[in-house]
Amino acid sequence: MVKKSATIITLNKAASEPIHLQIYTRFKEAVEGGLLNDGDRVPSTRVLASELGVARGTVESAYSMLLGEGIFVSKGQAGSFVHAPFRPVGQATPARTPRPRKTSSMAHPEPGLVAGGPSHVFLPGSPAYDAFPRKVWSRLASRRMRSLSAGDFSYRDPLGYLPLRQSIATYLRLSRGVACEPQQVFITVGYQGALDFLSRCLGLQGKDVWMEDPGYILATSMLQDVGAHLVRVPVDQEGMMVSEGIRMSPHASLAIVTPSHQSPLAMALSWSRRMQLLDWAGSAGAWVIEDDYDGEFRYSGYPLPSLKSLDQYDRVIYAGTFSKTLFPALRLGYLVLPQSLVDTCTEKARLYQLGSSIGPQLVVNDFIAEGHFSRHLKKMRSLYAERREMTRKVLRDVLGNHLEINAHKNGTHFAAKIISPHTDQAIVSGFNQLGYGIHALSRWTANGAQSSRAHSSHNGLIIGFTNIANEKTAEHAARQLQGFFT
Amino acid sequence: MVKKSATIITLNKAASEPIHLQIYTRFKEAVEGGLLNDGDRVPSTRVLASELGVARGTVESAYSMLLGEGIFVSKGQAGSFVHAPFRPVGQATPARTPRPRKTSSMAHPEPGLVAGGPSHVFLPGSPAYDAFPRKVWSRLASRRMRSLSAGDFSYRDPLGYLPLRQSIATYLRLSRGVACEPQQVFITVGYQGALDFLSRCLGLQGKDVWMEDPGYILATSMLQDVGAHLVRVPVDQEGMMVSEGIRMSPHASLAIVTPSHQSPLAMALSWSRRMQLLDWAGSAGAWVIEDDYDGEFRYSGYPLPSLKSLDQYDRVIYAGTFSKTLFPALRLGYLVLPQSLVDTCTEKARLYQLGSSIGPQLVVNDFIAEGHFSRHLKKMRSLYAERREMTRKVLRDVLGNHLEINAHKNGTHFAAKIISPHTDQAIVSGFNQLGYGIHALSRWTANGAQSSRAHSSHNGLIIGFTNIANEKTAEHAARQLQGFFT
Repeated sequence: MVKKSATIITLNKAASEPIHLQIYTRFKEAVEGGLLNDGDRVPSTRVLASELGVARGTVESAYSMLLGEGIFVSKGQAGSFVHAPFRPVGQATPARTPRPRKTSSMAHPEPGLVAGGPSHVFLPGSPAYDAFPRKVWSRLASRRMRSLSAGDFSYRDPLGYLPLRQSIATYLRLSRGVACEPQQVFITVGYQGALDFLSRCLGLQGKDVWMEDPGYILATSMLQDVGAHLVRVPVDQEGMMVSEGIRMSPHASLAIVTPSHQSPLAMALSWSRRMQLLDWAGSAGAWVIEDDYDGEFRYSGYPLPSLKSLDQYDRVIYAGTFSKTLFPALRLGYLVLPQSLVDTCTEKARLYQLGSSIGPQLVVNDFIAEGHFSRHLKKMRSLYAERREMTRKVLRDVLGNHLEINAHKNGTHFAAKIISPHTDQAIVSGFNQLGYGIHALSRWTANGAQSSRAHSSHNGLIIGFTNIANEKTAEHAARQLQGFFT
Repeated sequence: MVKKSATIITLNKAASEPIHLQIYTRFKEAVEGGLLNDGDRVPSTRVLASELGVARGTVESAYSMLLGEGIFVSKGQAGSFVHAPFRPVGQATPARTPRPRKTSSMAHPEPGLVAGGPSHVFLPGSPAYDAFPRKVWSRLASRRMRSLSAGDFSYRDPLGYLPLRQSIATYLRLSRGVACEPQQVFITVGYQGALDFLSRCLGLQGKDVWMEDPGYILATSMLQDVGAHLVRVPVDQEGMMVSEGIRMSPHASLAIVTPSHQSPLAMALSWSRRMQLLDWAGSAGAWVIEDDYDGEFRYSGYPLPSLKSLDQYDRVIYAGTFSKTLFPALRLGYLVLPQSLVDTCTEKARLYQLGSSIGPQLVVNDFIAEGHFSRHLKKMRSLYAERREMTRKVLRDVLGNHLEINAHKNGTHFAAKIISPHTDQAIVSGFNQLGYGIHALSRWTANGAQSSRAHSSHNGLIIGFTNIANEKTAEHAARQLQGFFT
């Protein structure tokens, strides 16, 4: 094995992907692709580090992630070995060195291709991977897979598996006050898939679309790509400044808003703004997408009602995702459509056939129907509240001179304003080289470079806390981050 | 239960969906949605028929499908009962009558939402559902589900699971002569998802696109919807008439072609046309999508090499799907991109994040890597050859005066020209009321209504044969079809 390692681990030192992540990924792919088999001995960290010309600590980081995920097992003095019991030796794909992936931090701002390890500490927008009920999930999934019927294999309704649409309708009615019929619920390929689909249904090309500034970077980039004309509406402490939107583009076709937890600044859209937005949509005949990506997570006080539940004009398209409540690799989200859009969208869904694979839909439905979903959310709410408090305290202790952290008790990340004379993009670029995944707030604004100036109000960091299992981890990461503020 | 049936089975007699399929679907949904529980007795066919005011035979058809799929079990004199052992009683979604679905035969020409039963006899474009190795699949899927690692839950590369991309590259190299690197292989949401994605990558709006006439109806409708300008290029016995395409639109951006098995007429694109098409694409700087939807199925002679394997200009985008080789509900297809498109498409894939759920990708990869895929294809090739011959003989015996069936020994369906004075759309509309799913060839042409005239060369039927298990089934269906020719 030692001899093979040099061909398997081809590093790209110029890439933005940190070296230890590259090592991790190459090994993982080599095991998954059958280049390495169960029981193969892997080189010692010392040997590999010298072979690759990198620091031993870098290799150790990668190995600890691989050991943590069970891809490697350690046998003490004997070294570490590949653990891949299910892949029969000799039936793998031919040996081939995976090329280093081209990564683009703009187009792919959530590089979290790996779980555990520093890449998820501080990464915003991810659920706690260590707390997902893997055993329950695996049990439900295995059960479903054993009992597939012939009908499960055939062409399915591209709108989604009906029982799942019913379960989601029930869930939203109870948890978010959204009264809807199952036929208004469409299953989508995550939130990006929902936006892509809506851009087809609503014909957004050349149309004015209000988008919060700052606002979710992937949505912004995609809407630009489909040819929408983005009207970046500023955000203040009450959320999107609706009157500014009306001033800038009174006849926009669509407004995209994150009312329960502004993405990324975390305040809720105030009651009066909600009313103002709905009244505008009603009179302008505009659609409103309520991106409720984090609506499940609120740690004190009462949530404001969802925009959709207040929508007497039937203009609100509610968008939710299982990426935050279950896990992102599912690629499952959902829309609740106004009645008047159901026919058009049904036709488009049948035309584009972008339905999701049936298997994951069956399992998610069981997970909800058997009560695991609500139990899991309840647990995550208390876990995230703890991790949030703990991380906040550590960040304040270690970085209090540099960061002002928002006080909103909701969501899965902090937006932290930089109050010392440093720019977010420089900090993030250095820090993420260590394998972290924080975001620069200025990248989420309409005018990125300018916003990144010191003392600009959007010169800040977006810091996730859901995957920080203990204070030691938080402190270690915070101290590493602090190193870039000197 | 008898009292509940009237609320569960709400028929829509005006809908195009046949009554027995409506009954089947409502029961299936009621069981899946928890309105009916394991062990519930269902009404007798006589009682339900009288309640609903339909013929008893109609209810019997539906019940035989439900019994065949194991959703009902028969206990002889005691009647039939719901069989749903895994759904715990009382944890279902609230009682709610599913509304009849709106179905549109144009937008959704493959109504095959059900397996078994007459809906799949003669339905084109489906694999043999009775011959899919469910046990092997379930075993692999359960195994994978039991061994999910934390990394499987996180954000994954939207281009697809790398080992699967490697497996597909290997498979295509061996079976279709397509030499490609894994990084050229992109996993898509079936073929429609591939087209949707390519329309984003290539920016097809307002561009000329060659499309065969007749040609795959869903692709045609979608391309029109994305704003492409379709140039319908006629097809003769050698496939797409490339010189006509050049005459009609010499500077088109894209040509979409089905070289191994023209969709739907079944001839292969001749060698000289392949060369002519590639030369044109090379000099015009146009892209060519090779839709190899049925390339795996050829029953005699040697296949022509894939267009992609002949492509010295690097203009061919190869598109394949697991919908025909595994099953449609997977929603998994793949593209092999020219090297020069890899960067653009990678960026778009990361922007739109339309990646497929990880679970099905893991299972498909195991299925290929462990040799099940090639075994399955080999079996299906001989099974389809048999079913093809048997169905052809029956159609000739029963309908020889009305239909002229093509002689191409490939694919999964017949294109049959109507030689008596009947129009395909009238025949199909009547016949499919019985629950079948044949297609009218004229619907696949640029000028549907005109093509449907008697004696028009595209007045014909598209008839699948993969799900016809025996001669009795073929004969029964053929005789029913014959009834509409009198």
